[in-house]
Amino acid sequence: MAKPLTNEEISSALSDLDGWSHKDDKLNKEFSFENFRDALAFITRIAFEAEEQVHHPEIFNVYNTVKIALSTHDAGGKVTEKDLKLAKSIESLYNK
Amino acid sequence: MAKPLTNEEISSALSDLDGWSHKDDKLNKEFSFENFRDALAFITRIAFEAEEQVHHPEIFNVYNTVKIALSTHDAGGKVTEKDLKLAKSIESLYNK
Repeated sequence: MAKPLTNEEISSALSDLDGWSHKDDKLNKEFSFENFRDALAFITRIAFEAEEQVHHPEIFNVYNTVKIALSTHDAGGKVTEKDLKLAKSIESLYNK
Repeated sequence: MAKPLTNEEISSALSDLDGWSHKDDKLNKEFSFENFRDALAFITRIAFEAEEQVHHPEIFNVYNTVKIALSTHDAGGKVTEKDLKLAKSIESLYNK
């Protein structure tokens, strides 16, 4: 079972990321795009990364917005290192 | 502006579809798949259809589940013929 991070560990890690929040025991961020196609392209890139990391986000899409929520099922739905790692990857895909 | 359908029109149309509900002024259905890859493939197919119909669903994905919610922005967020048409297309993609 993955070990949940403390609130302090999460806050400290989020200070290195842009615009992520810790809410409802999840790491959350909303991304905006020019249009639906760009949003879908982003989702697809996240999908490949998620498969590689064997860790999957909640993805919510409406037209040009993509909301991501990250938590770890094996840690009682809390935030773990797996979520931080995936958040960093998603951030880097967004800034590509 | 697109014309909202009445509750009766919606109920009648949904009786021809499998497992869709009318809730919160939206048409809703949750789909399940073997795994994340199949869920993502379904989302991608829906995306192409949505672009073609110039009408976009709300898509919520966690691992092997995909929740769809349909409403029409130009009709005050109510259900219109556009949503029924897209629901039918999504249903047919799912049954392919």
